[in-house]
Amino acid sequence: MRHIRVIGVGAGDPGLLTVEAVKALRSVEVFLVLDKGETTAELTAARQAILERYLDTYRIALIADPPRDRTAANYEGAVEAWRDARSMAVEHALRTEVGEKGTAGLLVWGDPALYDGTITMLDTIVARGQVPLKYDVLPGISSVQLLAARHRITLTRTAGAVQITTGRRVAAGHHDEDTDVVVMLDAHLACERFRGQGADLYWGAYLGTADEVLIAGPLDEILPHVTEKRARLREAKGWIMDTYLVRRGGSKPPV
Amino acid sequence: MRHIRVIGVGAGDPGLLTVEAVKALRSVEVFLVLDKGETTAELTAARQAILERYLDTYRIALIADPPRDRTAANYEGAVEAWRDARSMAVEHALRTEVGEKGTAGLLVWGDPALYDGTITMLDTIVARGQVPLKYDVLPGISSVQLLAARHRITLTRTAGAVQITTGRRVAAGHHDEDTDVVVMLDAHLACERFRGQGADLYWGAYLGTADEVLIAGPLDEILPHVTEKRARLREAKGWIMDTYLVRRGGSKPPV
Ligand SMILES: C[S@@+](CC[C@H](N)C(=O)[O-])C[C@H]1O[C@@H](n2cnc3c(N)ncnc32)[C@H](O)[C@@H]1O
Ligand SMILES: C[S@@+](CC[C@H](N)C(=O)[O-])C[C@H]1O[C@@H](n2cnc3c(N)ncnc32)[C@H](O)[C@@H]1O
Repeated sequence: MRHIRVIGVGAGDPGLLTVEAVKALRSVEVFLVLDKGETTAELTAARQAILERYLDTYRIALIADPPRDRTAANYEGAVEAWRDARSMAVEHALRTEVGEKGTAGLLVWGDPALYDGTITMLDTIVARGQVPLKYDVLPGISSVQLLAARHRITLTRTAGAVQITTGRRVAAGHHDEDTDVVVMLDAHLACERFRGQGADLYWGAYLGTADEVLIAGPLDEILPHVTEKRARLREAKGWIMDTYLVRRGGSKPPV
Repeated sequence: MRHIRVIGVGAGDPGLLTVEAVKALRSVEVFLVLDKGETTAELTAARQAILERYLDTYRIALIADPPRDRTAANYEGAVEAWRDARSMAVEHALRTEVGEKGTAGLLVWGDPALYDGTITMLDTIVARGQVPLKYDVLPGISSVQLLAARHRITLTRTAGAVQITTGRRVAAGHHDEDTDVVVMLDAHLACERFRGQGADLYWGAYLGTADEVLIAGPLDEILPHVTEKRARLREAKGWIMDTYLVRRGGSKPPV
């Protein structure tokens, strides 16, 4: 049986890898890498920095990421079709690039448990049953943890709760009414809707990289500044990776 | 100025430390350790295993944890008084055990961002202004991430959200109505109240240690088994550390 290792590499700095993740890297014969094209050139560089820091030699099998129909009327159907195609491409690579008792590695940005499709993809391949495999998962430091560490805050207050959610859900009003909220995958700073509530905002972009930016303060006051800064950064770099915590109702923990 | 390093060591296995956390350990002159007495003897052993794995020599300053009045009528007042006393004890140790330009370390189980008082305590000392200090925080792999990795699941489903909360809040009905829920600090398996909803339960105890136990399945079916197992483990060991994810409404992501 082939053995796949899903290795969380942390959100940026190679120093964020755990000691067991480094050990796992060393057990891998070939790294399967989905090639998503130009836009992720910098992520590719980050991955390479990790491999070069910890390994003398390594082999990468690049897998072309299937094209995704972003214009389809049936959005969910299109995403599903794309996911299927991607899992087929990976399955094919497993067959052709990994020996029957070989060990392959999949590097995952941050923690594989947060908004990442790798585990679901492997479950799909396992369910199809065409290429027998077993896999294990090594956790990694997520961007959310880095956000908290850099701002030197906790995500959960005493006796409090925190929700981790997406910009899309917040924009649609599908967020928790009485707890603190961490927002990821947010194209438009949906935290706009928390204005006028006495909330605090802890924002971070490019966390764990040389371009890291942190801004924190009362949301009502700093949001214009964050909005402008974010637009400028995205313009300059061509892309942005950011996440933030909204602490509701000042410093008093929600009941 | 004294420099304090708050080092997340992960939830159990020494291999969970990040490479930068190992480096931070090596920069520390003295580790400040709150001595909580017998009940945490095993956590003390875990800490020692970490220090011994990564350091040739190290110095520990044990700080007696102030007694906590658990019978006080005013629960919040008693907790606050205890916290104050604890921060004073740490402040005293900083003064007596750490040179004015020295570096001290505080090891935190899992990730300092999740249900841990270290950061708040340091902020209290900084606010008092009696012992000037600066501190940084190194994230660690939390028990929640380990739970997900061991079960090979994601915490967030596509387009979904997750709430991290306490047993006390769930028992009181203060949990999110339509997302998946991770429960920590739960003395009585409050997930009892999710019965009859078609939820799945992913439970883990002593994660990252030699005694790790994992159980997963439809909540309605496995809860009696988890309840019994948990009682038996706690009985045998004298204490238990467990956490779990409740995935609402089967495998369909919540909207
Ligand atoms: C597809 S998700 C992957 C999350 C990743 N698995 C993790 O654990 O951080 C991508 C989202 O994570 C957040 N993110 C990832 N890396 C980040 C970084 N270095 N700085 C800020 N946010 C980041 C952003 O919200 C981004 O939209
Ligand atoms: C005071 S909180 C500290 C959490 C810690 N900072 C973390 O990141 O995991 C303690 C709670 O964390 C969970 N926990 C900590 N370590 C655990 C482990 N090894 N296995 C299972 N649950 C654990 C339990 O829910 C426990 O009640």
